[in-house]
Amino acid sequence: MSVIYNRIAGQSVERLAAISDGIFGVAMTLLLLDLRTPAKELIHNESDLIRELIKLSPNLLVYLMSFVTLGIFWVGQQTQLNHLSRSDRHLTWLHLGFLFPVTILPFSTRLLAEFITYRTALLAYWFNIFILGVLVYCCWHRAVKTGVVKKETPPEFDKAMRRRVIGAQILYALGAGLCFINTYVSIGFIVLVQLNFVLAPKIPWLSEI
Amino acid sequence: MSVIYNRIAGQSVERLAAISDGIFGVAMTLLLLDLRTPAKELIHNESDLIRELIKLSPNLLVYLMSFVTLGIFWVGQQTQLNHLSRSDRHLTWLHLGFLFPVTILPFSTRLLAEFITYRTALLAYWFNIFILGVLVYCCWHRAVKTGVVKKETPPEFDKAMRRRVIGAQILYALGAGLCFINTYVSIGFIVLVQLNFVLAPKIPWLSEI
Amino acid sequence: MSVIYNRIAGQSVERLAAISDGIFGVAMTLLLLDLRTPAKELIHNESDLIRELIKLSPNLLVYLMSFVTLGIFWVGQQTQLNHLSRSDRHLTWLHLGFLFPVTILPFSTRLLAEFITYRTALLAYWFNIFILGVLVYCCWHRAVKTGVVKKETPPEFDKAMRRRVIGAQILYALGAGLCFINTYVSIGFIVLVQLNFVLAPKIPWLSEI
Amino acid sequence: MSVIYNRIAGQSVERLAAISDGIFGVAMTLLLLDLRTPAKELIHNESDLIRELIKLSPNLLVYLMSFVTLGIFWVGQQTQLNHLSRSDRHLTWLHLGFLFPVTILPFSTRLLAEFITYRTALLAYWFNIFILGVLVYCCWHRAVKTGVVKKETPPEFDKAMRRRVIGAQILYALGAGLCFINTYVSIGFIVLVQLNFVLAPKIPWLSEI
Repeated sequence: MSVIYNRIAGQSVERLAAISDGIFGVAMTLLLLDLRTPAKELIHNESDLIRELIKLSPNLLVYLMSFVTLGIFWVGQQTQLNHLSRSDRHLTWLHLGFLFPVTILPFSTRLLAEFITYRTALLAYWFNIFILGVLVYCCWHRAVKTGVVKKETPPEFDKAMRRRVIGAQILYALGAGLCFINTYVSIGFIVLVQLNFVLAPKIPWLSEI
Repeated sequence: MSVIYNRIAGQSVERLAAISDGIFGVAMTLLLLDLRTPAKELIHNESDLIRELIKLSPNLLVYLMSFVTLGIFWVGQQTQLNHLSRSDRHLTWLHLGFLFPVTILPFSTRLLAEFITYRTALLAYWFNIFILGVLVYCCWHRAVKTGVVKKETPPEFDKAMRRRVIGAQILYALGAGLCFINTYVSIGFIVLVQLNFVLAPKIPWLSEI
Repeated sequence: MSVIYNRIAGQSVERLAAISDGIFGVAMTLLLLDLRTPAKELIHNESDLIRELIKLSPNLLVYLMSFVTLGIFWVGQQTQLNHLSRSDRHLTWLHLGFLFPVTILPFSTRLLAEFITYRTALLAYWFNIFILGVLVYCCWHRAVKTGVVKKETPPEFDKAMRRRVIGAQILYALGAGLCFINTYVSIGFIVLVQLNFVLAPKIPWLSEI
Repeated sequence: MSVIYNRIAGQSVERLAAISDGIFGVAMTLLLLDLRTPAKELIHNESDLIRELIKLSPNLLVYLMSFVTLGIFWVGQQTQLNHLSRSDRHLTWLHLGFLFPVTILPFSTRLLAEFITYRTALLAYWFNIFILGVLVYCCWHRAVKTGVVKKETPPEFDKAMRRRVIGAQILYALGAGLCFINTYVSIGFIVLVQLNFVLAPKIPWLSEI
């Protein structure tokens, strides 16, 4: 009986895309929810307010970094989903599994924003990205293995997708490792890696990743 | 007049799927919203932060359990909706009714995370899952009774859906009952039940459920 | 120039449905966000927790009432949108206008839950519902006036939609008026009105509304 | 390899519309989340509650202004997306970039609501709108340049879209400049500008913008 249920459950790629967009949309908007306005007691004139807002700017950078992280994974996942002809319950659960660390990222982001000089906070943040990478890779691997990828998808795309995820993870791990020098160096490196993925510059050795 | 309104209202399965994805997506992301970062006063060095993060891990387990619970019911509901040719206002309201306990689950989850050793918290959590089960069963029962299930749905699917929901609820009730020994035993059992549903292992007697 | 922009902007009924589902979904889930778990200091044993949870039940009733209110308006709006062949920018803005009081309802709900014995809180809550009613009526009125309603919509539907909205608003106003006796009488009456709309019983004089 | 990934990633306009609707929907609903109910200690009778609610009304106006701002940009973006035949990864990232200031607007709104007499708060708010305008303009500019605009889009629409964005930004900048007289004058002017865009009155010189 359960076999029948499992054979029929979770086949809709459209619904999977919809719940993913929902969760990404909420997570991307919630990131900023903890950006608190300055306490009223601290503000007596315009320059107090300017000073307090400037103090918030490193936090804003961390939030932007997380927004971009979520954007990168959202583009990656939607590209996968666009190339699926259908899903099955196992693949659906892998994607739901991938969405769990998406919902954790706002927490990791708050943690890093509050403890920006702590290696522990940076490594927790990196671990969150690492899990996202592992799961998005597994999602694609299983889709290929079970033959649910669309016929019209060019065969090179499989290799490109895998190489992109692995290449990105190597760079993130490198960035995380830099925290043993200084967490700001780490964050700076990760932001540069992300700029590379977002802007996709046409520098030969970079576009190989 | 009202008869005409009621005959025409709430027929779109697509919109019902959309509001369901919206509510599930928000609920699944809000679960983690109350996972507070450690208080700054407690943290003076890296090991303080590590210690405080480790203290959060039972909470994280409860959140993961709730994410999986919502995932299981989302897969169940979407599987139902995928097999409907249309809806009517009564069925739409049953599904909206099912979505109400979905919005309560983040509260039950917080309650369990904060009072993890209290039987009352565990039973309140179980009751939330129980109501979800009752309503998802009613949704399917009514869909079958009013003949809005798609022609191409295999007839065995009806039995499989009912048996799946009832089987799951028996296991959840059993798990809840274990709280009279200890709430951790209860939670452990429920997590195992969920792993069974998520991973769908091919163990004969389990796949009968 | 602006004329051209305005002629082309906001024509998609699908996107209007999508933003509406998004806003309704978030609002329906946020309702419960302010349902706080009992303070840890108050809880020393199981019976403390039971007592504190029972104390929350009037609040839960108010949240359920708001969930149903949002559900009723969601069904009403989606029924309208399903019968539109297209939209235009004015109609889109009327619908966006209708969505603003949707985002206010979680606030009105919190207000009523906290000040449940205050007529002011109840009348503010009613006023929120009233504005929703006025705007959902205007949305339909404009759709009919500008001829964007689908050809296949039965002509009686127009009258049924208007009568439904006006009938509901008369009952809500009556319910709000009862707060001059007692706010609980008011809430009880409104809950009964809503049950009537949700369950749509086949009592002749009621189904005339 | 990366070239292949980048050529295939982010092509779906539907998914881009879905994540946009998700983020706009959450942001529009979260605006009100920080509208706190009056503190219980302050309320001893009905007139206390009325007085405290009246005190909230300037805040409510700021929230309405932000809701309308988001509505205006949502209509603008969806109008653009409706005229795209497809997307590519660069355009997708421009739109994601546009969505980042959307998620910041609830923060800017809270800031303005709390520090309504401070020029700094008003200029920060304006800067948020300005960034939104710049990015929505870039989105359209790139879509036209790369030829992904639908064939059936009338050629005058290009000019109309650009002129609309620039015209609006000039008016917003003018409004922001008025804060050197008084922030209330500024807010009043911006609200009037928005009413113009929402109601689209047929005043000749205004409809030229």
